[in-house]
Amino acid sequence: MEIRQLLALGAAMLAMASAPAFAQDSKEPYVRVAEIEIDPAQLEAYKAAVKEQIEAAVRLEPGVLALYAVTDKENPARVLVFEMYAGVEAYRAHLETHHFKKYKDSTQDMVKSLKLRDTVPILLGVKPR
Amino acid sequence: MEIRQLLALGAAMLAMASAPAFAQDSKEPYVRVAEIEIDPAQLEAYKAAVKEQIEAAVRLEPGVLALYAVTDKENPARVLVFEMYAGVEAYRAHLETHHFKKYKDSTQDMVKSLKLRDTVPILLGVKPR
Repeated sequence: MEIRQLLALGAAMLAMASAPAFAQDSKEPYVRVAEIEIDPAQLEAYKAAVKEQIEAAVRLEPGVLALYAVTDKENPARVLVFEMYAGVEAYRAHLETHHFKKYKDSTQDMVKSLKLRDTVPILLGVKPR
Repeated sequence: MEIRQLLALGAAMLAMASAPAFAQDSKEPYVRVAEIEIDPAQLEAYKAAVKEQIEAAVRLEPGVLALYAVTDKENPARVLVFEMYAGVEAYRAHLETHHFKKYKDSTQDMVKSLKLRDTVPILLGVKPR
């Protein structure tokens, strides 16, 4: 098996993991990038809220493959979330969950700006576990 | 042991059994974000080069956990790479590899701008595979 095939298989396995509904699906994950500017005075509260949201989403939603939230080392109030869903439907379902709505409500006064980017994967290369 | 405790233990064991490999390490992954503006006329050549680089890095380097390359759907010449390494040493080693140097050489005339961001993870939430 070529490495290209192996990586495609890895990505497919990622999509399939814990999501029997997508097990037959060969489609690529749906990836979005959120860039969020936080009120520095409320950064710790924001981090707690986003952690709670991510933990719930990964645990409860079969179509949420990964939510990686990081802050910029140079500017800790600048947050980036790299989001991988099994498909666009999984993303839409995520927006309707209780934990996501709670996160949006509780952080609306902490967020100074929000930029959502829709993306097209070139290659989602991940080490086989 | 009460049934409540037994269930909690069961849940904890389940969580541990399916935890991602890097989550078992005491240290957190080292995460970087690269934002790259490509000459639109050379976008396909750039994509081929970055794919080759990512395939080699994930296959050959134990410390490269993930390299996720995506393009902006609104502006396909804008590329973002979300990079996860086992640690900062793994990142430094990556910069010295043959495949990375080949990628840098072959793409230097395709890249119009490059912004590298060092990050601090808030939470790297991933679905257990």
